[in-house]
Amino acid sequence: MTGSSPAGPGHRPTIKDVAALAGVSKGAVSMAFNGRPGVSEATRARVLAAAGALGWEPSLSARALSGSRTDTVGLAIARPARMLGLEPFYMEFISGIESVLAERGGALLLRLVKDADEEIGVQRAWWRSRQVSGSVLVDFRKDDPRASELAGLGLPAVAVGHPSLTGGLPSAWTDDAAAVGEAVRYLAALGHRRIARVGGAAELGHTAIRAAAFEAAAHELGLEQWSSIDTDFSGTQGARATRTLLASPHRPTAVLYDNDLTAVAGLSVAAEMGLSVPRDISLLAWDDSQLCRLTRPELSAMSHDVFGFGAEVARRLLTVLDGGQPEAGPVATPVLTPRGSTAPPRH
Amino acid sequence: MTGSSPAGPGHRPTIKDVAALAGVSKGAVSMAFNGRPGVSEATRARVLAAAGALGWEPSLSARALSGSRTDTVGLAIARPARMLGLEPFYMEFISGIESVLAERGGALLLRLVKDADEEIGVQRAWWRSRQVSGSVLVDFRKDDPRASELAGLGLPAVAVGHPSLTGGLPSAWTDDAAAVGEAVRYLAALGHRRIARVGGAAELGHTAIRAAAFEAAAHELGLEQWSSIDTDFSGTQGARATRTLLASPHRPTAVLYDNDLTAVAGLSVAAEMGLSVPRDISLLAWDDSQLCRLTRPELSAMSHDVFGFGAEVARRLLTVLDGGQPEAGPVATPVLTPRGSTAPPRH
Repeated sequence: MTGSSPAGPGHRPTIKDVAALAGVSKGAVSMAFNGRPGVSEATRARVLAAAGALGWEPSLSARALSGSRTDTVGLAIARPARMLGLEPFYMEFISGIESVLAERGGALLLRLVKDADEEIGVQRAWWRSRQVSGSVLVDFRKDDPRASELAGLGLPAVAVGHPSLTGGLPSAWTDDAAAVGEAVRYLAALGHRRIARVGGAAELGHTAIRAAAFEAAAHELGLEQWSSIDTDFSGTQGARATRTLLASPHRPTAVLYDNDLTAVAGLSVAAEMGLSVPRDISLLAWDDSQLCRLTRPELSAMSHDVFGFGAEVARRLLTVLDGGQPEAGPVATPVLTPRGSTAPPRH
Repeated sequence: MTGSSPAGPGHRPTIKDVAALAGVSKGAVSMAFNGRPGVSEATRARVLAAAGALGWEPSLSARALSGSRTDTVGLAIARPARMLGLEPFYMEFISGIESVLAERGGALLLRLVKDADEEIGVQRAWWRSRQVSGSVLVDFRKDDPRASELAGLGLPAVAVGHPSLTGGLPSAWTDDAAAVGEAVRYLAALGHRRIARVGGAAELGHTAIRAAAFEAAAHELGLEQWSSIDTDFSGTQGARATRTLLASPHRPTAVLYDNDLTAVAGLSVAAEMGLSVPRDISLLAWDDSQLCRLTRPELSAMSHDVFGFGAEVARRLLTVLDGGQPEAGPVATPVLTPRGSTAPPRH
């Protein structure tokens, strides 16, 4: 319905617009819509007609007027449903968002989509029908169409991704390039010269950033050998990638993973192939959910407070919704947490 | 705003009510609200006034009229945000719901709450402001107030829980009592006479059902010794409970867990205490996310397709929304999947 609003797609009518068109105060608009006494039936009809003509709907405004605005935040994720349930990252990220929204009585509108094009349609529908106050955008790709499409809509949004990917939207990201550099330098300092990386989904912007940083660090340190294998972040593909690496004639002595699930899977593959961790092979995980502390040996990891990341993303979006300028800059850089799965290589 | 609707809390006004009050056809109501030509300004004002008086809002109806209804399903969860991110269950369950909603372009409105009372307020607000078409209710406790409170509201809902807990709402549940019985009989058949159970949160109805079934099976089989320790489903508390059990003078030879995260933690504790699994102690997990296949030894589990469970819950709710009668009966009984963590006890 709102798609045909005479106000056009770029402008979202306010109670002020309705009051101006009806020639009454904002309070009168509120009273007319609340069915409260204090406005005549003629005024009431004029207000309702004005609201109808502008495509303005009362529910949102009623909340704004009452001072108890509750924000619904949209989140569309373009990943297969089955996979979403397997990886700790998204549930921790979503829990972090919820922890901040809950303080204000807000909720998260969650939707799985096929791709960025479907998401653009979903975000547009959500925004025009006032189902969301604003959205969190995730999983940016190279030349992602969402930034420009959604900026034109006027949808308040925070993009989770490096500014090189998110086209001028307020952003929140982790400094993955710095973290990859630290990880590779640490493994090199332990004496590793053949280091492999089991990466995430190749089409995601942050995977490309990590891959480039890995290659740059390997060059800089003059490593003897390095390679990356992409996965879908699942345990199954993490196991497969580790098997390929450990079965190669000149196998690496250390592997850096792009999440923790693939690293846990890698640890199982090492055991399956009779290799001792960290004596025969060092493994370094990423994200560091509690999974890394439940394995034996415990997994060394590039630790990253994913819950806190989600919370900070929500805070930045609420700042945007409150009309403010959110903090710029990376949220946090994953830091090295050495545990039992990394050690100098055997010679 | 809708809280003060003259239609009262139990009745949700329809486009038919608006048409009747304005003395026009439903099509005219639609045209009036869409700003389409075909109705006079006078009719338009009358329709808008009627809608306002009834507290009827156009967005939902416009979708219904256009034949492309998109359902938003509400889900409020009363668990700490931090914990929600740690346990695979909820993300798999939510992913299952999303997989079914996505087929119809629907979304899930997710909110964390403190307790059932806060949830009742949230569900009431969601329903009255048309933010949801219906809701999924989870984590039922004994004498849960939600069933009666929300039934009075007219909110279409599916309750996840045994009918003994969900007060007449359409329900979906797993037959936990039968599964616990199977688990205990299996361990007893292997020769175990001292079996412990690491349970979930004591206040949840399904934990109480499992605890009672565990005790009944132990009695029936004449076990020498049995005990339950409650946890919050976290790895931390699962590790602590396992440590307590394994440090007791007459320690159990088998432990049954209420999810997989606590079982993975239990496996680590066994290693930490120098006990070999399954030679010294057998461990049997529950839920069986992919975590159970990433450990060494792989964990035997009461397997439960949590993703499929979420999908079936969503299908039952959509049946309710479509005006049908959802299938009754349990969704699936978790089945025994023996792997490497269970064996006869050493004598």
